[in-house]
Amino acid sequence: MHSTGMADTRTETDSLGAIDIPADRLWGPQTERARRLFRIGTERFPSALIRAVGLHKSACAAANARLGELPADLADPIAKAADEIAAGERDEEFPLPVWQTGSGTQTNMNANEVISNRANQMLGQPLGSRKPVHPNDHVNRGQSSNDNFPTMMHIAAVEIVEGRLIPALGRLHAALWRRSEEWAGIVKVGRTHLMDAVPVTLGQEFGAWARQVELGQERLRATLPRLLPLPQGGTAVGTGLNRHPDFDRVFCEIVAERTGLAFAPNPNKFEGMGAHDAFVELSGMMNVVAVSLNKIANDVRLLGSGPRSGFSELVVPADGLSSSIMPGKTNPTQSEALTMVCAQVMGNNTTVSVAGAQGHLELNVFKPVIIQAVLQSATLLADAAESFAEHMVAKLEPNRERIAENLAKSLMLVTALNPRIGYDAAVRIGKTALAENLTLKDAAAKLELVTPEDFDRWVRPEEMVEPGATLAGG
Amino acid sequence: MHSTGMADTRTETDSLGAIDIPADRLWGPQTERARRLFRIGTERFPSALIRAVGLHKSACAAANARLGELPADLADPIAKAADEIAAGERDEEFPLPVWQTGSGTQTNMNANEVISNRANQMLGQPLGSRKPVHPNDHVNRGQSSNDNFPTMMHIAAVEIVEGRLIPALGRLHAALWRRSEEWAGIVKVGRTHLMDAVPVTLGQEFGAWARQVELGQERLRATLPRLLPLPQGGTAVGTGLNRHPDFDRVFCEIVAERTGLAFAPNPNKFEGMGAHDAFVELSGMMNVVAVSLNKIANDVRLLGSGPRSGFSELVVPADGLSSSIMPGKTNPTQSEALTMVCAQVMGNNTTVSVAGAQGHLELNVFKPVIIQAVLQSATLLADAAESFAEHMVAKLEPNRERIAENLAKSLMLVTALNPRIGYDAAVRIGKTALAENLTLKDAAAKLELVTPEDFDRWVRPEEMVEPGATLAGG
Amino acid sequence: MHSTGMADTRTETDSLGAIDIPADRLWGPQTERARRLFRIGTERFPSALIRAVGLHKSACAAANARLGELPADLADPIAKAADEIAAGERDEEFPLPVWQTGSGTQTNMNANEVISNRANQMLGQPLGSRKPVHPNDHVNRGQSSNDNFPTMMHIAAVEIVEGRLIPALGRLHAALWRRSEEWAGIVKVGRTHLMDAVPVTLGQEFGAWARQVELGQERLRATLPRLLPLPQGGTAVGTGLNRHPDFDRVFCEIVAERTGLAFAPNPNKFEGMGAHDAFVELSGMMNVVAVSLNKIANDVRLLGSGPRSGFSELVVPADGLSSSIMPGKTNPTQSEALTMVCAQVMGNNTTVSVAGAQGHLELNVFKPVIIQAVLQSATLLADAAESFAEHMVAKLEPNRERIAENLAKSLMLVTALNPRIGYDAAVRIGKTALAENLTLKDAAAKLELVTPEDFDRWVRPEEMVEPGATLAGG
Amino acid sequence: MHSTGMADTRTETDSLGAIDIPADRLWGPQTERARRLFRIGTERFPSALIRAVGLHKSACAAANARLGELPADLADPIAKAADEIAAGERDEEFPLPVWQTGSGTQTNMNANEVISNRANQMLGQPLGSRKPVHPNDHVNRGQSSNDNFPTMMHIAAVEIVEGRLIPALGRLHAALWRRSEEWAGIVKVGRTHLMDAVPVTLGQEFGAWARQVELGQERLRATLPRLLPLPQGGTAVGTGLNRHPDFDRVFCEIVAERTGLAFAPNPNKFEGMGAHDAFVELSGMMNVVAVSLNKIANDVRLLGSGPRSGFSELVVPADGLSSSIMPGKTNPTQSEALTMVCAQVMGNNTTVSVAGAQGHLELNVFKPVIIQAVLQSATLLADAAESFAEHMVAKLEPNRERIAENLAKSLMLVTALNPRIGYDAAVRIGKTALAENLTLKDAAAKLELVTPEDFDRWVRPEEMVEPGATLAGG
Repeated sequence: MHSTGMADTRTETDSLGAIDIPADRLWGPQTERARRLFRIGTERFPSALIRAVGLHKSACAAANARLGELPADLADPIAKAADEIAAGERDEEFPLPVWQTGSGTQTNMNANEVISNRANQMLGQPLGSRKPVHPNDHVNRGQSSNDNFPTMMHIAAVEIVEGRLIPALGRLHAALWRRSEEWAGIVKVGRTHLMDAVPVTLGQEFGAWARQVELGQERLRATLPRLLPLPQGGTAVGTGLNRHPDFDRVFCEIVAERTGLAFAPNPNKFEGMGAHDAFVELSGMMNVVAVSLNKIANDVRLLGSGPRSGFSELVVPADGLSSSIMPGKTNPTQSEALTMVCAQVMGNNTTVSVAGAQGHLELNVFKPVIIQAVLQSATLLADAAESFAEHMVAKLEPNRERIAENLAKSLMLVTALNPRIGYDAAVRIGKTALAENLTLKDAAAKLELVTPEDFDRWVRPEEMVEPGATLAGG
Repeated sequence: MHSTGMADTRTETDSLGAIDIPADRLWGPQTERARRLFRIGTERFPSALIRAVGLHKSACAAANARLGELPADLADPIAKAADEIAAGERDEEFPLPVWQTGSGTQTNMNANEVISNRANQMLGQPLGSRKPVHPNDHVNRGQSSNDNFPTMMHIAAVEIVEGRLIPALGRLHAALWRRSEEWAGIVKVGRTHLMDAVPVTLGQEFGAWARQVELGQERLRATLPRLLPLPQGGTAVGTGLNRHPDFDRVFCEIVAERTGLAFAPNPNKFEGMGAHDAFVELSGMMNVVAVSLNKIANDVRLLGSGPRSGFSELVVPADGLSSSIMPGKTNPTQSEALTMVCAQVMGNNTTVSVAGAQGHLELNVFKPVIIQAVLQSATLLADAAESFAEHMVAKLEPNRERIAENLAKSLMLVTALNPRIGYDAAVRIGKTALAENLTLKDAAAKLELVTPEDFDRWVRPEEMVEPGATLAGG
Repeated sequence: MHSTGMADTRTETDSLGAIDIPADRLWGPQTERARRLFRIGTERFPSALIRAVGLHKSACAAANARLGELPADLADPIAKAADEIAAGERDEEFPLPVWQTGSGTQTNMNANEVISNRANQMLGQPLGSRKPVHPNDHVNRGQSSNDNFPTMMHIAAVEIVEGRLIPALGRLHAALWRRSEEWAGIVKVGRTHLMDAVPVTLGQEFGAWARQVELGQERLRATLPRLLPLPQGGTAVGTGLNRHPDFDRVFCEIVAERTGLAFAPNPNKFEGMGAHDAFVELSGMMNVVAVSLNKIANDVRLLGSGPRSGFSELVVPADGLSSSIMPGKTNPTQSEALTMVCAQVMGNNTTVSVAGAQGHLELNVFKPVIIQAVLQSATLLADAAESFAEHMVAKLEPNRERIAENLAKSLMLVTALNPRIGYDAAVRIGKTALAENLTLKDAAAKLELVTPEDFDRWVRPEEMVEPGATLAGG
Repeated sequence: MHSTGMADTRTETDSLGAIDIPADRLWGPQTERARRLFRIGTERFPSALIRAVGLHKSACAAANARLGELPADLADPIAKAADEIAAGERDEEFPLPVWQTGSGTQTNMNANEVISNRANQMLGQPLGSRKPVHPNDHVNRGQSSNDNFPTMMHIAAVEIVEGRLIPALGRLHAALWRRSEEWAGIVKVGRTHLMDAVPVTLGQEFGAWARQVELGQERLRATLPRLLPLPQGGTAVGTGLNRHPDFDRVFCEIVAERTGLAFAPNPNKFEGMGAHDAFVELSGMMNVVAVSLNKIANDVRLLGSGPRSGFSELVVPADGLSSSIMPGKTNPTQSEALTMVCAQVMGNNTTVSVAGAQGHLELNVFKPVIIQAVLQSATLLADAAESFAEHMVAKLEPNRERIAENLAKSLMLVTALNPRIGYDAAVRIGKTALAENLTLKDAAAKLELVTPEDFDRWVRPEEMVEPGATLAGG
């Protein structure tokens, strides 16, 4: 292996023959071939995955060393080179698109090549020498792309869910919950079918949203028992051919120790390589989170609609991002960003499901698109949840005047009379008030169904926001 | 073949051995075996498909007779028996679930058995005699389930789209369009981002919805060039083995004549049997219609929200289906039924896409679920569109008082000043009016940007609902 | 209220006026109006939901009685009438389509009317008398459609998941597991990317599928913490207006006792009425199960492909449902039914997600379509899993001859040489064998890389199906 | 506006106050605010959209100049600056994420600011001067984000469909069609239900795939009548407020002339702004293309499965991207990249549908996510189709030996006997051959159903690949 006459490439040879590689790049012939064969789209794996690749390869070297499968003088430079990847220092050495082999083999080989070249470089050898550190025999020792890549997927997914998505939802939950407590005393018109209904408090509305977010965190945590088991050790087809009997256990211990996450060997590695149901599950749970957040963002924009001809109960923050034509307009821009994210996450769930359903025998070959979609969903939900918490929820204000006005004129307060005069009589009051544009009290008096005094005692909006009050004697 | 000692079954024998069949049923051993092997769900093919089965089999008999492949004394009773199916008289003879073989073979054999039994019965033979009319050799002459069933699918789909869905959308379009004309003069606040914006007319809003529906009809029609070509004649794998060279042409002529629809042979029968892209396309177009109708139904409920604390610009019909607890409440029930239908159609599109993507070589084996979903979507959209037209659109009323009030107080009327004083100055007026709760005119005067006289000349909502007016000198 | 002159209708009057109802029907004017206003589709709620409706109403009566909200002489006949519904004796009294109000109000009112009429009938009153038992004041006492219907949804969903789907998956798991054990000793070619790979056992393949199913059960169970909390007691908007403070607790105790399922009050009833994330979650988990089963069914048909020109390692049962044109053909019909079910379930997940995402403020109004899709998915998965277990898995046979032949000629056995001679040398052997149509042993000898004796010692397929063997000295 | 003391920022002031902007950037305060408020994800609009933004703004300036709405000394520098964007020279000036306001307002304002700054710069003014060219009053003259952004979407979508996707599919079609013709004479076993069936030619299989691709092109073209109408001219809400009456017409003429594409004004601008059904339709059609390509890619990998233990009728190209553990393995890597793309496109269709369904009144606020998904789908399908054509289809080779062997032993050749001896007798031959491992000819002779001489005359695979042959006398 030596560089070509051209200043900026070197030539390497593999089983398919010679190939030119940019001279200063750490990748090798497999990566270079893949680069030329997959000119598809612009999508590259996010850094969350590349970090997992580095972590994974470093842990493999450590495990092989501990088990006597690799001597320290090979294992150490391998680990060092892999650590550079994990630290984000080699992102530019991963040029391949998501749209490659469905096993992620090219990205695994990319890592093997970069690490062996970098390790050999550290040992004073030229790029492309393939020794003393060989990409397959040493860097990939006891491994296959088929167990490596899904293991990297699991690591990246758990890290982003635990380290990023659940905490971000926590911040949104806290923001909503704070509002729920602050505005617990604001009684307002409730709405069902988008129509005026009996009263609720503004705090109750925020409390419901907070609860949805909290349950979203629960849902994500509920997926971990099936995300933490790693298929590492299955090698080519799940049997573990060519690896040390303890490799899977030792590998998982190392990864668990380094990440602080309870990774452990998947007891059935065939399941973890031939299928990726755990990611379909995670995606499905992120879909639920998206469904929740879509509702919250939409409710906020409904209550904030106006400022004069809408529900107008919340004042949406003036973020200065006004209309390009309508001067001074304020829009619920954060709700819109968030609901667009939700649409993307819901679509990603279809992508992941379609991809997950089409595995064949010992290998599902939709791995790259699955992890790409999963990491995108997690990142977008986390970022958008935080943005919504900070730039929307924290800056909302109740329009107390309008809230009071809406409540006062609501016809559905008549519901409080059901236990007193029966449903059918209450219907008559409500319809009369609407038809003749009367207050409920006046309608009730006119129909001689309830005296004004009784009405005032029985119909108290502030007592209608919890059970029992309307049933009490009085 | 004779009936067993048991009063209510007869015994028939096929290549797998003897099997008992309810004595008075026209179906035979294949159907009976399938009935026992597929105890899955309660879904049966809708009558729209069973009608197409009858039509198809009758046309096959006629084509075979015309081509000399079947003598008239067999072809005639076959056609007669098939016509009974087409007329809806034999629905109870099709007991099989949708969830059967993916080629629809069991339903095709069900038809073959019912027709041969019924034909033989008409010829004075006992059920199960398999002669003179044999289910395979005669009823299925020159055919295979593999070309029959998809042909039945095409016929049923085109009939429902042309005969039911497009006309139903026409009725919805007419209802919306009538409103659009009636209310062309009602100027009201427009809304973007759900926030108050510059004026539109109520007629323009209904006109936009009408246009969406009209385009939906166009979209459905655009699928016909790929739905009208029939795969009939492909027989087992697309090659046309065992059928007369002219069978496909003659068959299509007969079907076209009987239905009045321009069916013709698919020039590439492999395409029409191994793939069902034409149905994925139709489903995708119905998905667009669902997306349109979801928006319309939702917009109507937004404008109808209230009656007092919502947008309250439309009055939703009191259909008497009030709340079980809130007396006198009126809800936009038709919007809700329609949007639920839309959700189902959108999901069906996923089903059809997943099913369509997984064909294998010469045969897609997701035929029954595809046609089931397609016919369900078409039926639901048609029924719901008509219901919405009749029970919602035709009964809506504008709340003119509220519309006028909302318009008068809208801050976005300031937009009309852009061409006069520039965007930045207009922003100042709008923000001052909002912050100090002034009218725009007062804010403009206070800021000494527009005199009250100019304001009245320049800001005329009724002139803001079409281009150019605000630019005219004045 | 008395019957009309017409023999077969009676006339009832509600707030919208008089309406004719079939004389012998137990339903009332609300149901009758809804029947006329929603002529959409043919879908009716499945019996699983109607059973939950009866159970729910009976428990409400019992709870109201226990809390002193209803006297026993009203509560008892109400409970009796409701029990008839729960027992499946009144299915024909629920004529309304799924496509109604999105709160399920019409079905709740349908139940209220049927129960009050039936209770009054038992008390000797004519139909339509509305006394002594009134549909709203008594049957619906302390309730609203808005908390009733979602509570019925939760009950029906938990019952079907626990009582039907999880056990059905258990039967499929058992069938797969038994095969896994029976065929643990059959070594065969593994396949990745659908290409020949290193060996696995047939038992390992069945074991992976069994594991997928087992994890599916785990996933379904993981949803229960969010399905068991019931929104009952929220009444109209979640606040619990007009119900006894202990109603939710007592109701849940009764339902839990009667069903043996740990139902309990949802601590945030707003969440349980305004959103249905718990169903989106359940649907998402059923989507994972569908993804798993799709893979299993597809793998089985791949291994069973042939009988002569496919993989041909499994013999698919001859179920007698042969081709209508190709005599004696055997098809994997159960795989096809199952994968069609999976497509439906995947589409239903889109439906439920779209429906779940569009709730508004205090009420999600896509309840009927959500529960319809959820119950359909559960039923279909359960039925199809059992059918597949019984009619496919239990009847499969390995084709031992073909398995042995495939294994013997596999080029990927060369992988066992990696740890001995290195990856690059092993590549040369494999490529030479393929190009020159040699056995691996001959190619290895020809290239002078491995002696025949070493080859036989090192390349032992039966030792390649677990870790470590190939690394052992020898 | 002047730069701050800090070397690398300048300070600008808008209605919300002062804000620091990187000194050398052309964007202004609106863009800068948006940059800070939307820190969501890493997705940026693709260059296909940014190019359309430049083209759009240049055409607006030209139209305003032609109509006398802008003087040439303003219109010219605006157009020049916009042309730089269209030429791809200002991509780095568009820093905003997809996840912003749902109207795309921030990207429209970004363009307005960049163009006004650049125009003013060309006119010798400092950045941030807002004169003589004002971002709203001049660059955005007669426009609103609400009609601009969807117009940009339409332009970008039509350009990519016409200029990139349809031609790319054309290349795939050509590649498949060439194979279809080359291999028209190779008779092979057909397969239905993945099971051996009657013969087809390899050419017929490629011909079916080619036909699918050709129909995909037709489908895409069928969407153009609804993509070419542009909503430009609707301004804020569809009414056209503040624009010249001829602006829409003149704008479309200019864009049509410059692109060579038949853009024209949407006759109902409300429809084109409040809804984006045209994109849902386009996405739905790309979904059909994905479904088609998924089938093709999967079929190719099925026929290429092996090399020894699969169908093995096609030889997949050895692309050198072998397994990291199994030496010399060849995988259908291009099929995998393509099917992953299909999964993404299918998911994007859910995203676009969910986004399209949720428009509100005068504005759909999911514009950015819609165009992002649409352009991604188009790019990925185009790239992957070309890659598959070049690196897979063009390099496939038939395995003639295996094809002949598979055909010879196929039991389904018995189908040719149906018209001679009847279906039931043919069944007996087929079953006997399978059970006793005989050839069909021997089984037929043994059962005394067909003499060997007749068998040879009647069962000719090469005559079974078109209609009629088997029916001929002889």
